[in-house]
Amino acid sequence: MTETMKHITLASRPTGFPTQDNFKLEEAPMPTPGEGEVLVAVKYMSLDPYMRGRMDDGPSYAAPVPVGATMEAGAVGEVIASNDPKFAVGDHAFGMFGWTTHSVAKASMVRKMNPDTAPIQTALGVLGMPGFTAWAGMTAYSKMKAGETLVVGAATGPVGSMVGQLAKQAGLRVIGVAGGEEKCKLAVETFGFDACVDHRGKDARAMRDALSAECPDGIDIYFENVGGATLGGVIPLLNLHARVIICGMIAWYSGESDETGSMDLQKLWRYSLVKRLTIQGLLQTDHVARFGEFLREIGPKVANGEIVHIEDVAEGLETAPEAFMGLLKGRNMGKLVVKVG
Amino acid sequence: MTETMKHITLASRPTGFPTQDNFKLEEAPMPTPGEGEVLVAVKYMSLDPYMRGRMDDGPSYAAPVPVGATMEAGAVGEVIASNDPKFAVGDHAFGMFGWTTHSVAKASMVRKMNPDTAPIQTALGVLGMPGFTAWAGMTAYSKMKAGETLVVGAATGPVGSMVGQLAKQAGLRVIGVAGGEEKCKLAVETFGFDACVDHRGKDARAMRDALSAECPDGIDIYFENVGGATLGGVIPLLNLHARVIICGMIAWYSGESDETGSMDLQKLWRYSLVKRLTIQGLLQTDHVARFGEFLREIGPKVANGEIVHIEDVAEGLETAPEAFMGLLKGRNMGKLVVKVG
Repeated sequence: MTETMKHITLASRPTGFPTQDNFKLEEAPMPTPGEGEVLVAVKYMSLDPYMRGRMDDGPSYAAPVPVGATMEAGAVGEVIASNDPKFAVGDHAFGMFGWTTHSVAKASMVRKMNPDTAPIQTALGVLGMPGFTAWAGMTAYSKMKAGETLVVGAATGPVGSMVGQLAKQAGLRVIGVAGGEEKCKLAVETFGFDACVDHRGKDARAMRDALSAECPDGIDIYFENVGGATLGGVIPLLNLHARVIICGMIAWYSGESDETGSMDLQKLWRYSLVKRLTIQGLLQTDHVARFGEFLREIGPKVANGEIVHIEDVAEGLETAPEAFMGLLKGRNMGKLVVKVG
Repeated sequence: MTETMKHITLASRPTGFPTQDNFKLEEAPMPTPGEGEVLVAVKYMSLDPYMRGRMDDGPSYAAPVPVGATMEAGAVGEVIASNDPKFAVGDHAFGMFGWTTHSVAKASMVRKMNPDTAPIQTALGVLGMPGFTAWAGMTAYSKMKAGETLVVGAATGPVGSMVGQLAKQAGLRVIGVAGGEEKCKLAVETFGFDACVDHRGKDARAMRDALSAECPDGIDIYFENVGGATLGGVIPLLNLHARVIICGMIAWYSGESDETGSMDLQKLWRYSLVKRLTIQGLLQTDHVARFGEFLREIGPKVANGEIVHIEDVAEGLETAPEAFMGLLKGRNMGKLVVKVG
């Protein structure tokens, strides 16, 4: 066993988009697990848009990462030392290990994994938090019906691509929004969307026109990942009794100014009344009791190819800050993970 | 029978608050009912905030009143001529007769009333559209639980006072918002609210402070009638999983600028995600199938005084424009009706 581990800490809080300066790669002595704990060598860690929120000091659904502390992340790895009877050396495990090569964790906070059923890094994407978020939101709130039209942003990301595939399989018309031609092609050809609108260079008005062309019967469900001009373009196209599920707003995470065009709170309120919209905030933690149901339903579909997923792998812990900054700019293709060890 | 009738037409579309010039009192020959029709002498007509929307030419949940046409209103009256076997002269009836002394209507569009069970004008208020709106919204969308806190604007109006009473009877803490000391006193002493905040002279920040003092455990349900500074004050106080039911926004009906303080769409979106809010547009027409259930449940409670209601009566059709303008400025106390005949 090496004598040291590496981890990446939050060096300072960003203003706007994070920069390399906000992160610090540090070395530390290898920790030893205490009673009831395990030591895990991380193989893959997840990078997700929500982490941008953890870098800010302000009210959110979770506490911010303290300056100087290890950045937070879900990760999968191998147990290399165990002080708990539930884990043996060599076991595979998922936990919130963070941006790190190694982590000591309470055994009760770690989930054992069977690496034979699916590649372990799927526990970070299609069979992990992002896939579950999509499934939980769609099953709990969408009230989707065959023949309806759904729009979802970040269409090739792990949440958007799952939302779109679930809706397609339920018989909906599914329109994605993504940044760039290549992603739009992926949404249609790989994930089976009916169409995908490239949001690059489009303001709210142009988004509305482009979406309107693809949604001749209006929009019944908007799964919100992005905010910004896409939201401004979507709202005027929402049908009577449409549902908006707010899962994220990546266009706004780094404090960009509002780009929803003429859409303000007053106008949204009017639409909400006139169209009797349902707008619902979604966080997967509210639904954890159904995680087993999700795995039982979606696990086999991933195995047999009914549900498709794409990974974008960054190599080495030290690439994580750059990869994360790229994620916030939409530079990744598919679920972004870092191969750590 | 008199040879002529009077009615009030929309003379022109208002910009901002309506003025007397937007209305025209006209005389017309007394109409005669055709086959399957009745002639009704109106006794009471309703004045409601939604009518402001009908004066505008733009997308809403109902078509605008054409310039030159009779203003729309629910009304109750007596059948004075009938060409339909279902109605006899002397029957009492409810219909969308409009701002008028007399109206010919299809019998199928008119509801016969029993004047012995309740004063007929209650069909315009506590046992009519406003009371039903409150009941439908609360039963369908509020998910209210004893011990929660509800805030409702226009607290002494026919919708707000019903919302508050239903919530009190379900064991909630109920805080009203109303304009002026007299109305706040009425909300507490007559309608049984726990407290009532006077919105006069308060911006969003001051509303937040005042509501915060009355809602030590935050707000679980906001029944939205008003918009403006009240909304700006409410949103930051909403609890995890709070519900917002959007029924109206009288502060915004006449095109006033936004007064929600620093609350914009982007900020609302963040709150919706962080607090996992449910925001639901409400229109009673979506719920008409339950109108009978409403009458069976609430009718007896009105009769025995468990549900209290207050009427504000304007005398004579010609007073309707002035009374309606007062309604939009919050000058009425309780349900506003016009005694026509």
